[in-house]
Amino acid sequence: MHKFTEKTLSTEKIFDGKVIRLQVDDVELPDGKTSKREIVKHPGAVAVLALTSENKIILVEQYRKPMDRALVEIPAGKLEPGEEPELTARRELEEETGYDCEGLEHIISFYTSPGFADELIHLYLAKGIKKKENPKSADEDEFVELLEVTIEEAIQLVKEQKIYDAKTAYAIQYLQLKEAQK
Amino acid sequence: MHKFTEKTLSTEKIFDGKVIRLQVDDVELPDGKTSKREIVKHPGAVAVLALTSENKIILVEQYRKPMDRALVEIPAGKLEPGEEPELTARRELEEETGYDCEGLEHIISFYTSPGFADELIHLYLAKGIKKKENPKSADEDEFVELLEVTIEEAIQLVKEQKIYDAKTAYAIQYLQLKEAQK
Repeated sequence: MHKFTEKTLSTEKIFDGKVIRLQVDDVELPDGKTSKREIVKHPGAVAVLALTSENKIILVEQYRKPMDRALVEIPAGKLEPGEEPELTARRELEEETGYDCEGLEHIISFYTSPGFADELIHLYLAKGIKKKENPKSADEDEFVELLEVTIEEAIQLVKEQKIYDAKTAYAIQYLQLKEAQK
Repeated sequence: MHKFTEKTLSTEKIFDGKVIRLQVDDVELPDGKTSKREIVKHPGAVAVLALTSENKIILVEQYRKPMDRALVEIPAGKLEPGEEPELTARRELEEETGYDCEGLEHIISFYTSPGFADELIHLYLAKGIKKKENPKSADEDEFVELLEVTIEEAIQLVKEQKIYDAKTAYAIQYLQLKEAQK
């Protein structure tokens, strides 16, 4: 047990939605005082770094309501209950881009916002990308546009703040690092 | 205006806490149908990559209630209303580590969870680190432990999933990239 462990005294459930749940926990701090922790529960997600045979990065542009603007991101999506992350990754890649892959290599997993949420993202590198003939389509409330860009173009999109999210920025930097280590 | 813009039809405020707010928006989709968007509003945050004169990375270990475990992260904290991110960065560095810095260089900013939250993190590189004689202490509900590790040790902490969050993983990879580009 970690010495800074916070003991849960009570949990108040605030909201149970289709994507997230919200609860407020009363906790006992290491010094015996109490505090409240606002906690968003999320099912977890996957993201896929996929390169075409011309070494272009497959990206999707979509509208993101929390920011009221469009962002350019690597394909991603949330886990369905009980679903293996690799299955989710293949499904999201197909639904958002029309591409299938021969295999997936795990790059890293990380919490996105450990201060207030338990969302864990698993990032994969897709191997052996090919266009599917009749791909499954995206969720009915999901509208995405496919982009295929070189790494130099992706770095430019970061500078222009069109690529503006943690998982995609990490994936672009991962490619830069691979390139630099060659 | 982006072609996939989602028009807000109504907003239901669910929760207004000390860190986050939660609302559910009814939106009109590009095809005229409607959907609901669960949105966490967050004030934004900063994170600081700081290296000692021995080139060690300054990290803090702290308990994170959403995951019910301790994580090792770069110093970070949320913006106070109206506060300039650079001021927040200096304050958090001092409060969490006892270090002050001569200057800050902006590395990148990114949204952490664009699917459900508007949290934007600004990542800085601290320049000219030095121990403060009488540093301000952390928030009273914040208990952190200081670590100073080499980049090789940090990469090992990533493998052991002790470093397990997006901003810290990005910062470590940033150092690896700088090293590889030398």
